[in-house]
Amino acid sequence: MATDEFKLISRYFAANAGDRADVILGIGDDCAFLKMQENQQLAVSMDNLVENVHFFAAAPPYYIGYKALAVSLSDMAAVGAEPAWVTAALTLTNAAAHGEKWIDEFCRGFFAQFACYDLQLVGGNTTRGSEINIATQLHGFLPQQQGLRRSGARVGDIICVTGSLGDAGMALQLVQKKLLAAVPSQITEDLWERLYCPPSRIDMGRALLSLASAAIDISDGLLADLGHILEQSGGVGATLEIDKLPLSPWLLECSGTDIASAQRLALGAGDDYELCFTVPTHLAEQVEILAREYKCSVTQIGVIDATPGLRIKQKNGALFAPTQQGYLHKW
Amino acid sequence: MATDEFKLISRYFAANAGDRADVILGIGDDCAFLKMQENQQLAVSMDNLVENVHFFAAAPPYYIGYKALAVSLSDMAAVGAEPAWVTAALTLTNAAAHGEKWIDEFCRGFFAQFACYDLQLVGGNTTRGSEINIATQLHGFLPQQQGLRRSGARVGDIICVTGSLGDAGMALQLVQKKLLAAVPSQITEDLWERLYCPPSRIDMGRALLSLASAAIDISDGLLADLGHILEQSGGVGATLEIDKLPLSPWLLECSGTDIASAQRLALGAGDDYELCFTVPTHLAEQVEILAREYKCSVTQIGVIDATPGLRIKQKNGALFAPTQQGYLHKW
Repeated sequence: MATDEFKLISRYFAANAGDRADVILGIGDDCAFLKMQENQQLAVSMDNLVENVHFFAAAPPYYIGYKALAVSLSDMAAVGAEPAWVTAALTLTNAAAHGEKWIDEFCRGFFAQFACYDLQLVGGNTTRGSEINIATQLHGFLPQQQGLRRSGARVGDIICVTGSLGDAGMALQLVQKKLLAAVPSQITEDLWERLYCPPSRIDMGRALLSLASAAIDISDGLLADLGHILEQSGGVGATLEIDKLPLSPWLLECSGTDIASAQRLALGAGDDYELCFTVPTHLAEQVEILAREYKCSVTQIGVIDATPGLRIKQKNGALFAPTQQGYLHKW
Repeated sequence: MATDEFKLISRYFAANAGDRADVILGIGDDCAFLKMQENQQLAVSMDNLVENVHFFAAAPPYYIGYKALAVSLSDMAAVGAEPAWVTAALTLTNAAAHGEKWIDEFCRGFFAQFACYDLQLVGGNTTRGSEINIATQLHGFLPQQQGLRRSGARVGDIICVTGSLGDAGMALQLVQKKLLAAVPSQITEDLWERLYCPPSRIDMGRALLSLASAAIDISDGLLADLGHILEQSGGVGATLEIDKLPLSPWLLECSGTDIASAQRLALGAGDDYELCFTVPTHLAEQVEILAREYKCSVTQIGVIDATPGLRIKQKNGALFAPTQQGYLHKW
């Protein structure tokens, strides 16, 4: 199927765009016109995924599409915003765009969460290139004078994370070590899910607006991202208890007897897109109530303290030295 | 200079970001928090530029940076919006990011127009890739229930364009034919300017809010872009007078005696980023007054008529057949 940008936009994107009452003019003009609700702030986040950097070119296109939106939803969750409008700039290769099935599957993934959050694609751009590159921007709403930031952690606050950590890191390791062919097909699907379909903690993020003192989504690994909270909160420190890290049964099964390697992944590997947040101790119980209400597991993994830096305590009291600090794009 | 994404962001981007009172939280968190003015709509436009598709990899980085923002400013101009907030997702290659001079110059170009329009960079992403890819989103304001669209042209309206057409097309031709080395350095600079520094018709666009019935910016060529107006205005047609096309002295000089080739570029070549708009005849004089006020040349090049399709009349009344309909991304 040879195609051009206009056919591509109308067939695959305009048709699935969504339908919100506050979109005055959507896809198809030079700009979208959007109506803000009164007494709301606009929260915006732009991110992009690049072939062979953020995903394997051979990954199922459904997952590439899913993740392209999920990473931005995760940013919205991290500040407690309600997502609404989406824009996207898609650079597609000949190989990707020539395959109707590829685009079809990519769109199925990209639009998979639109109905869950009442999203609408309001604009963007498609172009060709020699590698797939997907830039996605999400626009959401925050009540005025609210919004979770990285900068609010205070000494004595507890440190919590949602869900489980290290799964995406383990999945990546298994794919990189080419263990894919050796595992049963059900586990293969699990692997891709762990890598490409991170949870969207939108409801939890919004519920935390009035409780958390600081928050971030874990995209580059717990140590790196918690590090941003510490740095932006005036140089406070943190002490984590390693045996409190939430490890999934899946990760434990894949790690066998090597718990330490699972813990290392939970600390240093990226792509989990869980929330890491801090809460004053007197609000800890309320967080537990919320977690039950939103069916989102929350684990207390440590505390903010006054000594700068990040310490990881083992059960016997000894300090644990991580081998990886998190993912960093370098040139 | 080996660098990483955080150093890059703080050294080159955060430092030049701008400073608007309505930016509650800017670069450095998961989202930016932005305050909309009351009684305004939000206008958004995302676009991206890809190496060897939208620019030559060997182009001076200043111009690549300049154009990355200019194409989005042009979309704002086309709807009559006041631009304010910028987000950008930059994919840089090793070659680009390792050269401090490259990024320095790129940023000088990218930020060149920030002060002119009180812009602020509020967020984005930097990542590595095997080709340079720059996605830019602009966010601007429109008075409620206003905003120029492609869909408003009516039979009898006059068709106008700002500035001159075909310059970028000629510049591209000269570069592609490798005539660059043969021209004096002053003209070389002109060439790059024509290709990479399109005018930003922001003031003119805003002034046209109450006058124009439809508008578009000419990115893919006059015929292609005017074609969008015709199609989206219920299938009206247009008749253009070829000898009214505004051709710059520079284009005429480069074309020599071959006026027809200059006219073909004005009709079919892209990248000029001038505005094409339609106006009811009784407002034509007001457009002239505005043009003088904003020192922006405006030329009436034809009329909207009821017969679908686009006709180009020569002085002798014969129809002119263009060889190129405009630029289209194909895969």
